[in-house]
Amino acid sequence: MHDTQRPPLAGIPAEVIAAADYEVLAPHFIAPATFAYLAGGSGADRTLAWNRAAFARVRLRQRVFGELTGASTATTLLGRPLPQPVLLAPVAYQGLVHAGAEVDTARGAAAADTPLILSSLATRAVEEVAAAATAGWWYQLRLSEDREADLARLRRAERAGCAAVVVTVDAAAQLPSRGALAAGFTLPSGLAADPPPLLQGPVSVFERCRRGAVGRDALAWLREVSARPVFVKGVTHEADAEICRALELAGVIVSNHGGRTVDGVAASFDVLPSIRAVLGDAYTILFDGGVRGGEDVLKALAAGADAVLIGRLQIYALAVAGALGVAHLLKLLREELALYMAATGCTGSAAARSADLLVRPPGED
Amino acid sequence: MHDTQRPPLAGIPAEVIAAADYEVLAPHFIAPATFAYLAGGSGADRTLAWNRAAFARVRLRQRVFGELTGASTATTLLGRPLPQPVLLAPVAYQGLVHAGAEVDTARGAAAADTPLILSSLATRAVEEVAAAATAGWWYQLRLSEDREADLARLRRAERAGCAAVVVTVDAAAQLPSRGALAAGFTLPSGLAADPPPLLQGPVSVFERCRRGAVGRDALAWLREVSARPVFVKGVTHEADAEICRALELAGVIVSNHGGRTVDGVAASFDVLPSIRAVLGDAYTILFDGGVRGGEDVLKALAAGADAVLIGRLQIYALAVAGALGVAHLLKLLREELALYMAATGCTGSAAARSADLLVRPPGED
Amino acid sequence: MHDTQRPPLAGIPAEVIAAADYEVLAPHFIAPATFAYLAGGSGADRTLAWNRAAFARVRLRQRVFGELTGASTATTLLGRPLPQPVLLAPVAYQGLVHAGAEVDTARGAAAADTPLILSSLATRAVEEVAAAATAGWWYQLRLSEDREADLARLRRAERAGCAAVVVTVDAAAQLPSRGALAAGFTLPSGLAADPPPLLQGPVSVFERCRRGAVGRDALAWLREVSARPVFVKGVTHEADAEICRALELAGVIVSNHGGRTVDGVAASFDVLPSIRAVLGDAYTILFDGGVRGGEDVLKALAAGADAVLIGRLQIYALAVAGALGVAHLLKLLREELALYMAATGCTGSAAARSADLLVRPPGED
Amino acid sequence: MHDTQRPPLAGIPAEVIAAADYEVLAPHFIAPATFAYLAGGSGADRTLAWNRAAFARVRLRQRVFGELTGASTATTLLGRPLPQPVLLAPVAYQGLVHAGAEVDTARGAAAADTPLILSSLATRAVEEVAAAATAGWWYQLRLSEDREADLARLRRAERAGCAAVVVTVDAAAQLPSRGALAAGFTLPSGLAADPPPLLQGPVSVFERCRRGAVGRDALAWLREVSARPVFVKGVTHEADAEICRALELAGVIVSNHGGRTVDGVAASFDVLPSIRAVLGDAYTILFDGGVRGGEDVLKALAAGADAVLIGRLQIYALAVAGALGVAHLLKLLREELALYMAATGCTGSAAARSADLLVRPPGED
Repeated sequence: MHDTQRPPLAGIPAEVIAAADYEVLAPHFIAPATFAYLAGGSGADRTLAWNRAAFARVRLRQRVFGELTGASTATTLLGRPLPQPVLLAPVAYQGLVHAGAEVDTARGAAAADTPLILSSLATRAVEEVAAAATAGWWYQLRLSEDREADLARLRRAERAGCAAVVVTVDAAAQLPSRGALAAGFTLPSGLAADPPPLLQGPVSVFERCRRGAVGRDALAWLREVSARPVFVKGVTHEADAEICRALELAGVIVSNHGGRTVDGVAASFDVLPSIRAVLGDAYTILFDGGVRGGEDVLKALAAGADAVLIGRLQIYALAVAGALGVAHLLKLLREELALYMAATGCTGSAAARSADLLVRPPGED
Repeated sequence: MHDTQRPPLAGIPAEVIAAADYEVLAPHFIAPATFAYLAGGSGADRTLAWNRAAFARVRLRQRVFGELTGASTATTLLGRPLPQPVLLAPVAYQGLVHAGAEVDTARGAAAADTPLILSSLATRAVEEVAAAATAGWWYQLRLSEDREADLARLRRAERAGCAAVVVTVDAAAQLPSRGALAAGFTLPSGLAADPPPLLQGPVSVFERCRRGAVGRDALAWLREVSARPVFVKGVTHEADAEICRALELAGVIVSNHGGRTVDGVAASFDVLPSIRAVLGDAYTILFDGGVRGGEDVLKALAAGADAVLIGRLQIYALAVAGALGVAHLLKLLREELALYMAATGCTGSAAARSADLLVRPPGED
Repeated sequence: MHDTQRPPLAGIPAEVIAAADYEVLAPHFIAPATFAYLAGGSGADRTLAWNRAAFARVRLRQRVFGELTGASTATTLLGRPLPQPVLLAPVAYQGLVHAGAEVDTARGAAAADTPLILSSLATRAVEEVAAAATAGWWYQLRLSEDREADLARLRRAERAGCAAVVVTVDAAAQLPSRGALAAGFTLPSGLAADPPPLLQGPVSVFERCRRGAVGRDALAWLREVSARPVFVKGVTHEADAEICRALELAGVIVSNHGGRTVDGVAASFDVLPSIRAVLGDAYTILFDGGVRGGEDVLKALAAGADAVLIGRLQIYALAVAGALGVAHLLKLLREELALYMAATGCTGSAAARSADLLVRPPGED
Repeated sequence: MHDTQRPPLAGIPAEVIAAADYEVLAPHFIAPATFAYLAGGSGADRTLAWNRAAFARVRLRQRVFGELTGASTATTLLGRPLPQPVLLAPVAYQGLVHAGAEVDTARGAAAADTPLILSSLATRAVEEVAAAATAGWWYQLRLSEDREADLARLRRAERAGCAAVVVTVDAAAQLPSRGALAAGFTLPSGLAADPPPLLQGPVSVFERCRRGAVGRDALAWLREVSARPVFVKGVTHEADAEICRALELAGVIVSNHGGRTVDGVAASFDVLPSIRAVLGDAYTILFDGGVRGGEDVLKALAAGADAVLIGRLQIYALAVAGALGVAHLLKLLREELALYMAATGCTGSAAARSADLLVRPPGED
């Protein structure tokens, strides 16, 4: 599609006037097969598309006489102030798109006072990224069948200063993206700096899913041993959400893995309201899936999220302009969120949920 | 798209047989970047498209035995007879498309016995337009942070003979159209004949929106000082509408600024019925957004409007054939409205609302 | 689109295996501008498209254990047996597409034992068509402002042997098809063999509609003077339908004039069930609009019609293969109807209405 | 579309990574006209498309904390264990696409421990196929007007070892596919190894449908004489389903013949839940129509099926790679089913029905 792959820019590209523009620009800066892998989802990419379509179906209600004195995008998470209800999602193998990899992402996030969630499959060492992540960071712990190895990884992250731990629970069942396969993408070996133990031996689908799954026991164990709050990423069913709360974990991340695991499952945004309904107003819910701008962030807040994780846009901005791109992306998101909050008379991210911000057009609901 | 830009016609173009045809013809008479700016909305132009789609989703119910004796498109607004429930919306910078600018628009409107609403950002002086607007005109007052300057502008318009004042309240938050940006449109400096004071100093999104917003105090003040009825343009939320009524203003104009301010907000037509419902039958509601013909005018009346404002078609007709184009456009709208009223057995614009004119197809609502 | 216009065939074209195929073939046998006029509707042809879309939204329920002994497409109308619940709709100016014109249509209809409804704007004299229409015919009487002229036309049709009279009531308001205008179609002068009196003098839209309309008084008068049952064509509103029944007319024809009069009004098929609901089971309701095959005929019966009128397909078949084409079209319709009746376990056209034949897919209603 | 038709492969094609890929590859291995016939449906192929669209409208709900211990795709049918709730549907004339024909299909099915349903219109003798079908097979008995001939065919199948009998009841009314006709497909004569008696003499649509139909008497007779359980294929209406149960037949196969008989009837998947509702939980319901992968199999189980029949994919896999292709297809289906069961926390095919697996997106139901 793109004849030549461009090196990352040293400055902010003039073409980028909205957060979503990094998605438009990214294919010029990423090798085609790699882009197919990163941009793709699972199977025929239906859930990937539904994640976006779910946002497109709702519309915002404008308010013109809202009182904006004191309005702010700022919020608090784990007792820590955030400039906006946005974190960087754990994205694996960032070295695929930029030499600075997770370290540059951390620098960009730090410049925007934003925590990142470091993937277990990072291409840089935890300590190296931690040193750059001066605005804080969380650690995504990929649990294995080897509790000792898991514990060692946890302790290492704690020592490096992670503020919270994220366990991804929806990665056991995986159907690869047909687009990425067609593009001929293969993961280079040895990419991850500190890879977690792999499942060993040829196993059946059910055995692989059962052994690869993160069950309640594992979560209960992690809650016991972890010195940090534990979040569960990959919850889209009310019953699963209730289990997390019953285990007294810190919160859930409503996510279908960006449509990357099992094509055909429902859109993240579509399931968010019912997850909030069963968990009640006080439990922490983060959200992930299809966010491409501040407008989507506000919609997610209105539908029940406390904050939002940014996945693909993060890696696109990194590819286009390194740390500067990531910082710029976060600034654009915050300005867009502010604009949409102002337009809807919403003074803070908490207020978004109580207000009546979203509407579906007549004849479509 | 169009190789050469044509000069305005001296007569009515034969190709124009419906009001909507001016939209088809306009690109030939307007510089491409300017057309992109005028025709565009905000962001990705979704709200712009939804404004039209909302009309397309409803269908009219034909009546064949309606009694048409005495039927007429004529109505009354502010105690003044109108040939049809149509006014010309405030459209800025008309000098961009025709040398005659707002003066020619006023001549065309006068020829069709139609009032226009003169924009604060007109390219001609108020008095010059007022002299041409022999069928009456309203003044759009863009409030600033400088009350004295605002008052001076108001008094000048009153002296020039404006029949009412329109305050636009939805222009504080603005997201530019990506299409207009891509087309490279930039507003020439010094276009406005009498520009209102601008917000000074670099300000944040919220500060800009807060300081640029027209609040209740400003409206209460305006109601006190204005010698003319005050209408509020840009109301799409029931709560905002109720505030206008509580302030005893003359009426509201349901409008999302033609989709030009914040992309993603709901279609004007979709919110009209609920605004009418909360304001009751007697309060004056004008409507704006997506009207492209007499059929749309009738649908807006049926959905709750007392009259309709014409924005883009106005500027297109001006570009194509100057004052004659504007007059012709208004004549076509009136004939189309009459035809659709006759076809639906509707004898007057007030009757439109009580009749059961609109239907949604089964399986779509 | 089609380089050369072909002369009518002398035999049945092999390509035609379904009634709808005549629509595919017709453009090869009709001058392009004429085809644009015949195939087109009104305005932007939305109602024309909706007439078809309304059929497409419903699906049939198959029955496999229905008892088909004695099953038949035959029905009775005005006490007269019909081979199927199908009549030929009044279509004006048939000489535009075939030299045999209405006479050939009548021959084809007669060969299929089917009555036709002769248009007031026929290109052949009533008596000439009547002589060919040995399976019976009805007369479409276009009422004018001249009762004496109307009465003379009625008496002439009665003398010629018409079995019923059809008054079209939805032709007063007319918006031409933009497609036909763009194609440059103009009606040749002097086409009609016996044109009814025209409205005289320049009149406004409302005056034209009011004077051109067929009101209750005119219908009451016609019912008095007519020696034949009177049907009203162009009813799509429940209130209009009730007026026809109150006037003790023989029946209504639910029709929006094939989408040819006022673009934007609802689809005929969508309004049929509510018309049946208000008129009750015994009153005669014919249907018109969007029928392209026996499947549609069955759907119309299921939705409340007693019989169906065929308009555009009739003229297409005439253009392609004259009288033979018309006869063949009617045969295909009957075979298709039989197939769909058999597939749905429906033994007769009356049974269609009581059965539960139609379903809308979940998620679309 | 495809320049050259390729001979069947001797091994598994590398391009096939999902069951649905056999549909993509098949056109390269089947003569174009034959492919048009096999892939096509009836009429304009609307029901064919709806069969797929019905699956696409529902989405799966992911579960991450489901207990997968003991999970399995295995099920039981007629007291016989199956590796997955999948059988091969009766597909006629398999010799059209591969020299091995039904014998190769049987070999592939046997390799995957899967029963096939042998068509009455097979191109190989019953005994020959039976010998290859070591995992069991059922016989599709096409009833004729000649009971003795039917009984002889039944006895022959019983002697050959069929485990059950399937009577297709929806083949009396048939509307050919326009696509297949346009492609010029004609069935070579003498294809079937043991063709059942044909209807004799020129008959009307109703007579053909009535005489070709399989009525209650025929089913009651068959139930009496058959030494094997009898299934009825082609049930889509609740009333028909209830008749089958009242006749104490072994089960129904919800199917619209893959959209091949009467275009315009509802999608199989859309009618499945109401058939299950009227038959209750214990009655055996198989399903057929639009299944292209393990995800669809799970959806069908969730919507009420006990097992699923695979038609077109079967013949495609046979065309591409003979017996090996069929075995590979069944393996892929099983792995896909396992993956989707694991992802939704579903431990067995019976559990699928009680779980709350399916959801429709808001704004579409």
